[in-house]
Amino acid sequence: MSAHTEYLSFTTRQRRELVNITDRLAEIVKRSRIQEGMCLVSAMHITAAIWVNDEESGLKQDFQQWLDVLAPAKPDYIHHRTGEDNADAHLKRTLVHHQVILPVTAGKLDLGPWEQIFYAEFDGQRKKRVVVKVLGE
Amino acid sequence: MSAHTEYLSFTTRQRRELVNITDRLAEIVKRSRIQEGMCLVSAMHITAAIWVNDEESGLKQDFQQWLDVLAPAKPDYIHHRTGEDNADAHLKRTLVHHQVILPVTAGKLDLGPWEQIFYAEFDGQRKKRVVVKVLGE
Amino acid sequence: MSAHTEYLSFTTRQRRELVNITDRLAEIVKRSRIQEGMCLVSAMHITAAIWVNDEESGLKQDFQQWLDVLAPAKPDYIHHRTGEDNADAHLKRTLVHHQVILPVTAGKLDLGPWEQIFYAEFDGQRKKRVVVKVLGE
Repeated sequence: MSAHTEYLSFTTRQRRELVNITDRLAEIVKRSRIQEGMCLVSAMHITAAIWVNDEESGLKQDFQQWLDVLAPAKPDYIHHRTGEDNADAHLKRTLVHHQVILPVTAGKLDLGPWEQIFYAEFDGQRKKRVVVKVLGE
Repeated sequence: MSAHTEYLSFTTRQRRELVNITDRLAEIVKRSRIQEGMCLVSAMHITAAIWVNDEESGLKQDFQQWLDVLAPAKPDYIHHRTGEDNADAHLKRTLVHHQVILPVTAGKLDLGPWEQIFYAEFDGQRKKRVVVKVLGE
Repeated sequence: MSAHTEYLSFTTRQRRELVNITDRLAEIVKRSRIQEGMCLVSAMHITAAIWVNDEESGLKQDFQQWLDVLAPAKPDYIHHRTGEDNADAHLKRTLVHHQVILPVTAGKLDLGPWEQIFYAEFDGQRKKRVVVKVLGE
């Protein structure tokens, strides 16, 4: 069995951004030389998530608007008494989930025809990390 | 270490369906001959999910109605300008999450007393796949 | 490859509770002696979840109130015709997701600076279990 670990860093320009990381993950799997296994992709900061969905600009806008309805940015969260203003980002991360496992088959990411992997930043403009760990043989 | 991969196919009769796949997954784990490990179950199409919950018809109806409240089917998504009409299915997949990892212990799925695994289709009536990968020894 | 499995038990005093289990998970990883791998943490009962977020009391209150808005406790779920009264707990588990995979690097949980792992009980006051399986080498 073999394990290969890398960390991706993100400092987004906008507070909220979706960054397509599919190609970067494919390269990490290639470097790992693992033929059969699983690739964990997990946002290490608690106001970011990982989303597997379509690279379609309209859907990405729908997604952001939908998250704002279900987990709205607003002043009156209790968390904000600490001086923070990002409680909605914690809730958005929860809703989207902060990690995925990608299957690795025959040395490559084993994705469906439209599956693209996104780093979903909800409170950016500062350096944050994602851990990528490939396990297999 | 050993890896075993199979793909399940679904062409549901209804646009939205819950299909209990627990027995099929148990058979895959048996065929893998893996005694200790993890079994990844991941919907490869971006309008389907995997749900682990109760095989109780009332709860399954509550689940569908609840998803329709939080991620309603409606015409005015931006995604629909592409000619699609399934933006709500993308959002429902996001909410439920598209994958689970099932522990494999002593050669069997290590589930709680009521845990059943469902393929949750939100835009069916066409062929779609789920990847199942068992990793362990 | 090596696998190490333990089960955590919870009988919460309150019906709904968040229990920080980060230290208990770190000890399990230590006992596993696995240096590189993945640690699955999965709630085996279908009215509980696992949440990775901040140990901050205000945010934890916001989280609970938010879940009550999105998946309210109310009498008129169809599931309740079975005599149950916990349909909202099934939906809350779905929203938060019932499991996480924690990376294990150099023999330790490889967490971000604020990531804490919580057992999220939505229908407690009775014994329930979480399976923890560490896989690696």
